[in-house]
Amino acid sequence: MAVKERIRVGGRSARIQSAVHEAVKRLGAVTDREQLTVPQIAAEAGVTPSTIYRRWGDLGSLLADVAVARLRPIAEPEDTGATASDLRAFIEQFMEEMSSPVGRALIRDVFSAPGETYPVQCAGFTPEHLTTIASRAIARGETPFDIDEVLDHVVAPIIYHILYGDREPTLDYCHALLDRLQSLPATAVRSAPSDPAVARRAAKKPAERASVRAPRVAPPKRGAGRKSTGSKSPGRR
Amino acid sequence: MAVKERIRVGGRSARIQSAVHEAVKRLGAVTDREQLTVPQIAAEAGVTPSTIYRRWGDLGSLLADVAVARLRPIAEPEDTGATASDLRAFIEQFMEEMSSPVGRALIRDVFSAPGETYPVQCAGFTPEHLTTIASRAIARGETPFDIDEVLDHVVAPIIYHILYGDREPTLDYCHALLDRLQSLPATAVRSAPSDPAVARRAAKKPAERASVRAPRVAPPKRGAGRKSTGSKSPGRR
Repeated sequence: MAVKERIRVGGRSARIQSAVHEAVKRLGAVTDREQLTVPQIAAEAGVTPSTIYRRWGDLGSLLADVAVARLRPIAEPEDTGATASDLRAFIEQFMEEMSSPVGRALIRDVFSAPGETYPVQCAGFTPEHLTTIASRAIARGETPFDIDEVLDHVVAPIIYHILYGDREPTLDYCHALLDRLQSLPATAVRSAPSDPAVARRAAKKPAERASVRAPRVAPPKRGAGRKSTGSKSPGRR
Repeated sequence: MAVKERIRVGGRSARIQSAVHEAVKRLGAVTDREQLTVPQIAAEAGVTPSTIYRRWGDLGSLLADVAVARLRPIAEPEDTGATASDLRAFIEQFMEEMSSPVGRALIRDVFSAPGETYPVQCAGFTPEHLTTIASRAIARGETPFDIDEVLDHVVAPIIYHILYGDREPTLDYCHALLDRLQSLPATAVRSAPSDPAVARRAAKKPAERASVRAPRVAPPKRGAGRKSTGSKSPGRR
């Protein structure tokens, strides 16, 4: 009986979450985000406002929860057959999604909520994709790359400029960031260890992450004198 | 008479802004940020709520406006006598301020407001400091550095990890990011041009920015075999 009760509650809880998330998405498509209210969302979802307050605390946290759900990866990164082009394709798509009006709104929702719950949930999404790409590199016998290097020196600058709105990230810019990784001498990879006190790295098992300290993101020998600017996806055929 | 009127209005406008900003700071020191309301701030500042709504639009924008004012540089970066140590001191202070609880709250307020007004205002602050440090380098006859390189590969990763809460930025981490800049070959500096369509780079004249494409942030010859990890502030005496 207790078990049955719990199952019933779980099912109801999931249905409420789904109904409220859907209501936010439907209303968000037709209403300015600043005009959204909890009573309006509750009415659209067919629940009481107190249900929303009890579960999410406030509107900002609800919007952040919806944003995390929408940012959560639903597909593996494209397998293009080579590490360089896998990474390039992933970064291009990442930049285009995040810098789109929808992407910008989702990022803003994630960072607007109180606390660090929602940003930390999102923090694992990009390393998850990069881990997949690095695992493929290993499986193919290619030199893998340092996931933290890509995160710090390709992903972070893109997110920085999207957030601050001071520079429009372009494909050329993404390619230049990737090319720049390659140009580092092998000994120059970051040598500072991750802070062991930080257990906040979310939703991700450390063992899953490729820790090989190789800075190259592409087979370096193809096409002598290649230049980044304007050369679109040189890793692709 | 019209002029007199305008001066009087301007003075009153400035006084209101100051009173409301001070009210937010006083209340923010004793009240949880989520509990702040416009009527409460208005009462504390001695203005009507409609004055606040008329001027700032909503609470989020008011909080962002206060955050920008508090993030605005009030002093030049420390002059330590050499570019490497100037940069190091600036980055250390930047990281410590931004990753502090107050810094994190200010960043969150800036990004929570609707639109890009407030992030764009902040976007100029760090390049402004870096420009000062680069100008000093030139005045001293030292090799200047590429401001965009420092922004993308030192500042951006620090802000990224603060925002996502996935890694605590440490002094060692900051030093490693700075050391990494030095290790780039001179030809590897970003070659993608800034998007000319982006006129949004805020509050900053392009001519003021050092555009020399030198990736070095420190005199490279001091101390053979230097390693980043654990070597605290090698640029300092």
